Amino acid sequence: MTQAPKDIDALIDLMARLPGLGPRSARRAVLHLIKKRGQLLNPLAQALTTVGETARECLNCGNIGTSDICGICESEKRNIGQICVVEDVADLWAMERSGIFKGRYHVLGGTLSALDDIGPDELRIPKLRDRVTTEHVTEVILALGATIDGQTTAHYIADELQGVQVTTLAQGVPVGGELDYLDDGTISAALNARKAL
Amino acid sequence: MTQAPKDIDALIDLMARLPGLGPRSARRAVLHLIKKRGQLLNPLAQALTTVGETARECLNCGNIGTSDICGICESEKRNIGQICVVEDVADLWAMERSGIFKGRYHVLGGTLSALDDIGPDELRIPKLRDRVTTEHVTEVILALGATIDGQTTAHYIADELQGVQVTTLAQGVPVGGELDYLDDGTISAALNARKAL
Ligand SMILES: [Zn+2]
Ligand SMILES: [Zn+2]
Repeated sequence: MTQAPKDIDALIDLMARLPGLGPRSARRAVLHLIKKRGQLLNPLAQALTTVGETARECLNCGNIGTSDICGICESEKRNIGQICVVEDVADLWAMERSGIFKGRYHVLGGTLSALDDIGPDELRIPKLRDRVTTEHVTEVILALGATIDGQTTAHYIADELQGVQVTTLAQGVPVGGELDYLDDGTISAALNARKAL
Repeated sequence: MTQAPKDIDALIDLMARLPGLGPRSARRAVLHLIKKRGQLLNPLAQALTTVGETARECLNCGNIGTSDICGICESEKRNIGQICVVEDVADLWAMERSGIFKGRYHVLGGTLSALDDIGPDELRIPKLRDRVTTEHVTEVILALGATIDGQTTAHYIADELQGVQVTTLAQGVPVGGELDYLDDGTISAALNARKAL
């Protein structure tokens, strides 16, 4: 409820559903957008429409791209023997920002969680098993959060994947920390010091 | 820089320019939008487009509406003898949510600020002077922030508007507020304005 005209109220309600924005910051954001119509509101509406039309999940790895197979999976420059397993696309982006990993990814889409009733089939674990075989993978690097669910998932995957080396990022990932919060140096150090699981 | 496809990167850059969102929360928001394409991304793109086309500033008071004169200025139910002066539209909405004010508004669009080089003509002060005369206003209520710039602006307006009663919101302890959370200035103001019980 803002007492604004209903189109603006509807926009505020939608904005308030974004992670990180509450009702008050949504109202501020919408007023800012209206003030910056040419520089911000119109380009944002256009960018959203474009992304809504073009963004899709890579059928191979779960990364977000603009084609059925993402740029990383398609690239001939990427080492096909290594797969880095991450929880979500934000973590993949964080890994890519560090610039040190030259293999491919596999985005689980979450972690195993008894509490939230998320089992292996809710994640992309069966697909990971397939890829290890079909892509002749020699190493699977588990870059999961140092949380209980992240580590449970890591051990589950390590048990599932027989006949391939499974490594995990070195400690250096702070306990309880999420990958997306880490600076590039920490990610690089943890990747370089990875250990067999 | 997210390492995302360029359309998605462009969307993240625009989102990061919203007040209250930084680069990281913009990345999270965009991934959330892509996941909730039908429920959130598409409706948001549509709502932005609509607001971009319809929202306009009231020529009389500076409120945001969908016509040249806003609903409040047009309403015959609003007392035309009283004008409540606010800094921005978010403050107008906050006043309206309280539901107690039945007059009209005047949105300054900021406060006087020597630092930011904002003088009376950058605000809507000349228009306020006109309205006081043409709308036969008997009382101007200054609902400006209890900041230095807000109070400077209040005193400037009070000096400008001769022949009309100028009042200001009382300062004090917010309803439900605990003393321990209040800053010294608020406590001083509340103490100075104390009333017999
Ligand atoms: Zn891919
Ligand atoms: Zn108006």
